[in-house]
Amino acid sequence: MAATSAPPASAQANGNGSAAGVGAPTNPMATALLTDQYQFSMAYAYWKAGKHADRAVFDLYFRKNPFGGEFTVFAGLEECIKFIANFKFTEHDISFLQSVMPTCEGAFFDYLREVDCSDVEVYSIPEGSVVFPKVPLMRVEGPVAVVQLLETPFVNLINYASLVTTNAARHRHVAGKSKVLLEFGLRRAQGPDGAISASKYCFMGGFDATSNVLAGNLFGIPLRGTHSHAFVSSYMSLDEIPDKALRSKDGSRVCQDFVSLVQEWLQKIQVADSLGGVFGYTNQSELAAFVSYALAFPSNFLALVDTYDVMRSGIPNFCAVALALHDLGYKASGIRLDSGDLAYLSIEARKVFRAVEKEFNLPGFAKMVITASNDLNEETIDALNKQGHEVDAFGIGTYLVTCYSQAALGCVFKLVEINSKPRIKLSEDVAKVSIPCKKRCFRLYGKEGYPLVDIMIRESEPSPKAGERILCRHPFIESKRAYVVPQHVEELLQCYWPGRSDKPRAELPSLDKIRSRCMQQLEKLRPDHIRRLNPTPYKVSVSAKLYDFIHCLWLNEAPVGELQ
Amino acid sequence: MAATSAPPASAQANGNGSAAGVGAPTNPMATALLTDQYQFSMAYAYWKAGKHADRAVFDLYFRKNPFGGEFTVFAGLEECIKFIANFKFTEHDISFLQSVMPTCEGAFFDYLREVDCSDVEVYSIPEGSVVFPKVPLMRVEGPVAVVQLLETPFVNLINYASLVTTNAARHRHVAGKSKVLLEFGLRRAQGPDGAISASKYCFMGGFDATSNVLAGNLFGIPLRGTHSHAFVSSYMSLDEIPDKALRSKDGSRVCQDFVSLVQEWLQKIQVADSLGGVFGYTNQSELAAFVSYALAFPSNFLALVDTYDVMRSGIPNFCAVALALHDLGYKASGIRLDSGDLAYLSIEARKVFRAVEKEFNLPGFAKMVITASNDLNEETIDALNKQGHEVDAFGIGTYLVTCYSQAALGCVFKLVEINSKPRIKLSEDVAKVSIPCKKRCFRLYGKEGYPLVDIMIRESEPSPKAGERILCRHPFIESKRAYVVPQHVEELLQCYWPGRSDKPRAELPSLDKIRSRCMQQLEKLRPDHIRRLNPTPYKVSVSAKLYDFIHCLWLNEAPVGELQ
Repeated sequence: MAATSAPPASAQANGNGSAAGVGAPTNPMATALLTDQYQFSMAYAYWKAGKHADRAVFDLYFRKNPFGGEFTVFAGLEECIKFIANFKFTEHDISFLQSVMPTCEGAFFDYLREVDCSDVEVYSIPEGSVVFPKVPLMRVEGPVAVVQLLETPFVNLINYASLVTTNAARHRHVAGKSKVLLEFGLRRAQGPDGAISASKYCFMGGFDATSNVLAGNLFGIPLRGTHSHAFVSSYMSLDEIPDKALRSKDGSRVCQDFVSLVQEWLQKIQVADSLGGVFGYTNQSELAAFVSYALAFPSNFLALVDTYDVMRSGIPNFCAVALALHDLGYKASGIRLDSGDLAYLSIEARKVFRAVEKEFNLPGFAKMVITASNDLNEETIDALNKQGHEVDAFGIGTYLVTCYSQAALGCVFKLVEINSKPRIKLSEDVAKVSIPCKKRCFRLYGKEGYPLVDIMIRESEPSPKAGERILCRHPFIESKRAYVVPQHVEELLQCYWPGRSDKPRAELPSLDKIRSRCMQQLEKLRPDHIRRLNPTPYKVSVSAKLYDFIHCLWLNEAPVGELQ
Repeated sequence: MAATSAPPASAQANGNGSAAGVGAPTNPMATALLTDQYQFSMAYAYWKAGKHADRAVFDLYFRKNPFGGEFTVFAGLEECIKFIANFKFTEHDISFLQSVMPTCEGAFFDYLREVDCSDVEVYSIPEGSVVFPKVPLMRVEGPVAVVQLLETPFVNLINYASLVTTNAARHRHVAGKSKVLLEFGLRRAQGPDGAISASKYCFMGGFDATSNVLAGNLFGIPLRGTHSHAFVSSYMSLDEIPDKALRSKDGSRVCQDFVSLVQEWLQKIQVADSLGGVFGYTNQSELAAFVSYALAFPSNFLALVDTYDVMRSGIPNFCAVALALHDLGYKASGIRLDSGDLAYLSIEARKVFRAVEKEFNLPGFAKMVITASNDLNEETIDALNKQGHEVDAFGIGTYLVTCYSQAALGCVFKLVEINSKPRIKLSEDVAKVSIPCKKRCFRLYGKEGYPLVDIMIRESEPSPKAGERILCRHPFIESKRAYVVPQHVEELLQCYWPGRSDKPRAELPSLDKIRSRCMQQLEKLRPDHIRRLNPTPYKVSVSAKLYDFIHCLWLNEAPVGELQ
């Protein structure tokens, strides 16, 4: 089995479309061979017909918002631009293609050897934007054979990215701004880069940190993680702690027997009136594990308290260690709950922390961070909110990264124009009819600052202007139309890859900036579009001219039926 | 953003555990940093307590079969072995870890610099085997700090691999042996290597080919793919075909105007009595696209027939081109349907092919391959089977690669022994209690050659033997037990990574061999375990000794409750 061919160090493109400054795709496997076989079959058929350089315009869009919602967050643009900046076939690739397409003429492979994306132009909505069905996320223009080769990798790089970013944004919405959201999905994603993408895009969608160390390294995402149940059960007793000394936080003194200090605190807790009767015997393996962890991370002690029994063992053991640390000037971070009734346990744990604060006069102890992390998702967080809980941070894995409730976003890539001739894709299902023509797209904002409607117009039409009345029509339903006087007009598609042309190229912002954009855009949206229950659909429209054109082309292409 | 650090060219391990001959992970991103942050926190705490080299045994297993079924196919082993063969921290990795763990002592990072998997032993069930809940798929033994670091990447590499292989095997089961199954999931998977893994593991689970060119290159999987709707709609008319000549298959003559030949056939079809009245005007863009594609691939003509109207345009256009090709000695391959009622359309298309065979006396024309490919899954194929259909090949994407009906397999990695002391993980949910002890696992076969039961025993116990009666007990339910006299006994866990030891190492077979193993294993299973509706659970048991030991340890560790 051959190794993946590495991407070329720099692409051959000229002009603004050069690879310089764009960098390589995150995954070195994202090379020009990462496409469907039929793209090469078509490329050959186009080439044989002398049609490969025909100038084609494709729209990349989706037809339905995921997760029963009425919004989607667009992500994956940077990876697409990196992909085309490095798009080039190596000799290894060419040999492989020759071996699987043995009937194709040799000159075709000479053509492929020269192919790059210098004749391609990519217009896109900025990454991290809130987007809606039918409006192109990207418009890709260039030689038809080349743009077809880009279809599969672009859809691959955008589909999951946008889906999981949207999922993360939905989790943020239900959890609220004040909660800490941690992405713990590495072991449940589709292999290494499913996981790495998940970490990147969940951060983009509003998560605060990840457990994935490689993602932290690649993208600068904050890392979080303490210990597992195995760590707790790997200890047998307190005798396993060879070095019991701990220096105080300010360095002024050394406690020679931290274990005894913890044991003293455990006894005090057990006899304290305000905590009375709650705590009997606690698990000593667990206590040993906590002590050992505290000795390693005295400034950052966070314990998983559910290995044996949360209320009877985990919480008193944690409090004893936290109180001993406090004696030495350290402040414990908190606990993690990974099973059981998270609402109940978090409330009970908080009660104990409050009681400890009061009993031992330790201001702030009640504010100990409670992290929860067992098979959480939008629904369970919503249910916790309704019941009441004391969780400060949610660690979310499986349901987040697999997008369990809807595991795919159906992005499509449709031909809308070739050699300046508009094309339409028909279907018996109206929702699947494509909107033809090379288009420009605008978001129209109302008086209150909320976006009102997105509108697509033909490229030749004048742009909508603030303060000017414009008719917005539903693309397919004749009766649905409305006049709008926008207070503000935003053009959605910007040029991110001008190819050989000298059009100015929009910057690819940092991950932090994209994340901020995402959060700002969601805040700008009218709340009824993002609520979980029965959200209101956001309106997407076409200009009157485009409406007429679509329906003229449609009639022209569709065969007249004959009932038999 | 830093690039991924490349895996070291060869690991430092000695003995049989050397990287030599194992190769690198498919994805260069699968490096030692691809793990959860808490594995490093724990490694540091173990190291601080002088416990990092404690000899630990972990079992990797799952608790429930996916997709409502009663079997799972195990996959991902080869990638895990490649991962540990190359497991080593680079200086880049160490610097990053120092930056995110600033309070850890420098000597810890010196320790990490020396870490590899030469002290680790991996026993595993062979890849492609049918497996069941609770039985360890892998037993990983070694220094506790190192084995913990392997937890996340192992679970990551096995979870999705086993899930999607199982999904593919289920699709194969419902489609039947005679159908061709094509994996078309590249654009819907979780990014580049979600897709590449999907292609590899769907092939393993019984698919015949993929559309993913890179997967074909990496794994030698057969490739399939023809053209898309965009190809069809990119043509306007037959005038767009500049070179109309086609040489006959045997090279003896050249048809100078293949377009006219096709048009003649289209007229013949339209007036043929046996096809009478069905065909009127067909779409000329579509016809042009078909002709163009046939000129490029005369020996392999397969047309997507649903861009405009399957029965009124796609099928007659296809037949005209196929008949013209036939005049020149070529045999067309068939059609693809990507929308509409696939049962009805495939039956109607077959009727036309039969009528054409008869009308024009072309033996074999009726056998034209019909491929279907619109949002297919287990349920839709089952429904098609019940209705009756004429589909020969299924192209399956979204539902297959996202494992839409259950997007994650819950593999876990549990400590079962440390320093020769058995450990148990308790839980209020009995299904989550781990089975302690370093174990050996066997599959017992009955008279008819079917596997009867899997049994786990303590390492110190004698192996079960063919012809000898053995008591098999349910691990948790006292009343569930049965005597078995196996006709044949198979030991399940084999040594794939002996580390520094001189134990013989099991070979990693080729993908083709693993695929054959998977299909043979499924055939050997009693049919009621694999049927779709209400399958019978396969029995998983422990020896009487292990049963007693589990329950003794359990009582010992569990706190006695106190009702208040």
